[in-house]
Amino acid sequence: MNYHKTVTFTLTMLTALVFIFTAQAQEMQQQDGPEINSPVISEDNHVTFNVYSENAESISVNGSWMGFDETAEMEKNDEGVWSITVGPLEPYMYHYNFVIDGVPAIDPENPKAMRDGTRYASTLIVPGEDSEVFRVNDVPHGSIKKVWYDSPTLDLTRRMYVYTPPGYEDSNEEYPVLYLLHGGGGDEDAWTSLGRANYIMDNLIADGSADPMIIVMTNGNANQTASITDWAEEPDASQGMFGGEDRSDQDVIDNMTAFPNSLVNDVVPYVEDHYKVIANSENRAITGLSMGCLQTQITTMTNPGMFEYIGCFSLGIHYNPPFDVVSNNVLVPAYDEHLETMNNELFYVAVGSDDFVYEGVQSLREKLDEHDFDYVYNETGGGHTWANWRDYLADFAPRLFK
Amino acid sequence: MNYHKTVTFTLTMLTALVFIFTAQAQEMQQQDGPEINSPVISEDNHVTFNVYSENAESISVNGSWMGFDETAEMEKNDEGVWSITVGPLEPYMYHYNFVIDGVPAIDPENPKAMRDGTRYASTLIVPGEDSEVFRVNDVPHGSIKKVWYDSPTLDLTRRMYVYTPPGYEDSNEEYPVLYLLHGGGGDEDAWTSLGRANYIMDNLIADGSADPMIIVMTNGNANQTASITDWAEEPDASQGMFGGEDRSDQDVIDNMTAFPNSLVNDVVPYVEDHYKVIANSENRAITGLSMGCLQTQITTMTNPGMFEYIGCFSLGIHYNPPFDVVSNNVLVPAYDEHLETMNNELFYVAVGSDDFVYEGVQSLREKLDEHDFDYVYNETGGGHTWANWRDYLADFAPRLFK
Repeated sequence: MNYHKTVTFTLTMLTALVFIFTAQAQEMQQQDGPEINSPVISEDNHVTFNVYSENAESISVNGSWMGFDETAEMEKNDEGVWSITVGPLEPYMYHYNFVIDGVPAIDPENPKAMRDGTRYASTLIVPGEDSEVFRVNDVPHGSIKKVWYDSPTLDLTRRMYVYTPPGYEDSNEEYPVLYLLHGGGGDEDAWTSLGRANYIMDNLIADGSADPMIIVMTNGNANQTASITDWAEEPDASQGMFGGEDRSDQDVIDNMTAFPNSLVNDVVPYVEDHYKVIANSENRAITGLSMGCLQTQITTMTNPGMFEYIGCFSLGIHYNPPFDVVSNNVLVPAYDEHLETMNNELFYVAVGSDDFVYEGVQSLREKLDEHDFDYVYNETGGGHTWANWRDYLADFAPRLFK
Repeated sequence: MNYHKTVTFTLTMLTALVFIFTAQAQEMQQQDGPEINSPVISEDNHVTFNVYSENAESISVNGSWMGFDETAEMEKNDEGVWSITVGPLEPYMYHYNFVIDGVPAIDPENPKAMRDGTRYASTLIVPGEDSEVFRVNDVPHGSIKKVWYDSPTLDLTRRMYVYTPPGYEDSNEEYPVLYLLHGGGGDEDAWTSLGRANYIMDNLIADGSADPMIIVMTNGNANQTASITDWAEEPDASQGMFGGEDRSDQDVIDNMTAFPNSLVNDVVPYVEDHYKVIANSENRAITGLSMGCLQTQITTMTNPGMFEYIGCFSLGIHYNPPFDVVSNNVLVPAYDEHLETMNNELFYVAVGSDDFVYEGVQSLREKLDEHDFDYVYNETGGGHTWANWRDYLADFAPRLFK
């Protein structure tokens, strides 16, 4: 091998070796162009987004710090890098998409993205006091188990996520359990990926503000086995709580009570059989957001005495279709029957002042007041958003099992 | 309330109610435009991709069925929908990106995407016999637990994924364990998200071709606590096995042996303490791909007798920097010392004929042959790809613990 050949051989091998250590990543094509980072967060919490395209006609950004329908145009420099600086943003967790000539896209430079139903967005956390509670901090972390269980009630084998707190594996203790329900469009993955429930609990447990507890995150869509990413079959267009167009009132009620029934009949027994659980009502809590709040109300009103700690995030009582059926036939009769005698430890209601369900929550409060039922009310700013639901969990969890 | 007001009110509320059941999804902006689906797989396995953009200058697709650097141009119709039909594609799992005026983007209509290191791609499975083994089928599913453990060897608290087979939770049996290592650029998430190891095992166990076993998937990057999505801090540019530019030979060896040492000293004891495990060499297997194959070789050659079942996917012995340091100082001396006396149940080597590491694998085979050491050799087509690694796992797992 002469000198020239040796050099060529060595360079080829060096390229190959670099490739070995980024091999899988290299399976997904990377774009050419100048080296850029995105997002870049400045010390004063301005955030700069960068994306490279020589040819795009327009690129804009849509982020959760803006109005839902707003976008902000990015500007292109001589190198073909489109940029925008926004802020300063309040310390918090945000999600965003670029819109490349009308096509929504995650940020190619940002490795952190999350799925929300069928869509993906890039995420960023602006550091600061208000984002500490859901950051990954240097504290002990609980485990998350994705486990499949039989639901005879729904005639399905289904997946749920179970959070066990730090120390659970090596402990002989028994723990209380919080059943944490997602909203419409969500699934069993939502409370950890969008809601960061595991890191919120790690942080609250580490600073002593919440007790160590098990958290059970189910799939509240009664006809699904698991999140869409893990379905055996292609999406079925009829999937959804309310069934088809020709539903009767009883169909609506059956659909709305199917998941709560499976929770009580299948999930709670599974958890209490398979985990180190204090299996009594004083150590059982339940809450949910939006649809999950409706399911929480149905579960607790139709199973009085089962859960001492009850939360409702961003929903109330609604006298309009299809909720009027549920409110008039299930919820309100249950409230009227049980509120006089119920005396559970905590009933917690939270809603944002800009939420479109705000009035329905006020109807719920009126019903509770009508029966002189004590509850905690947390009214925040903001709307029907994960920004609020993360905060509500962080406010709710420390109130449990005290 | 007059008639007009009632109608308006009802329509507003109906809109609000629809919103409740897609509330989180609605937090991420959806594009306007004609209703489209993508990808659409025809009965004869042609695949059509669709994306809407009135303004893009060019949109193309890059998919894992093509060459790495290739793209195929999509064509725009009168409604602004860009389309291309490819195939017929062999039944298999593929990933792809759209390239919107030069910007890589996942398919906005496809809810299935996966992360590979720092990048995301959309995925699709063309159904057929060859994709049955990694599909989500109607068979019992094992659990996956994301658990944090102490690694005194690396002075880190780290995350790993543990697959337990269907029935594990309700069984009194003890199980064998496979330690399954990812490659460079990967992390503890790779073997389930890219490799579909859990569904492969579910299917192999269901049809009786593999024994029920526990699978431990660690993070092989010795300086990382977890995958980049779950780091406490921002990415550290110096992260990587080989350390900085000024490394000595000993630095390289230390880096290369750090993870194998932690696997033997920290991970195996944790797993054998916390799971229902048959804790002996006949019930311990290890394999890895690329960098994980190197780590498998280091682990097994420096700990002879610990694992009866050893696999190596897509790597061999390399006499070039920085591997020459490891080959000449760790691997080859270990082979020479131990191969004469070693007599483990299985040594399995797999590589694709187009893989850039093909020659290095032949060097490994020569070393094994030199010592008359029996091994199984699986040479396939293809290169350094997850398509091969999924197949190698499906071929390797049924050979274990027999």
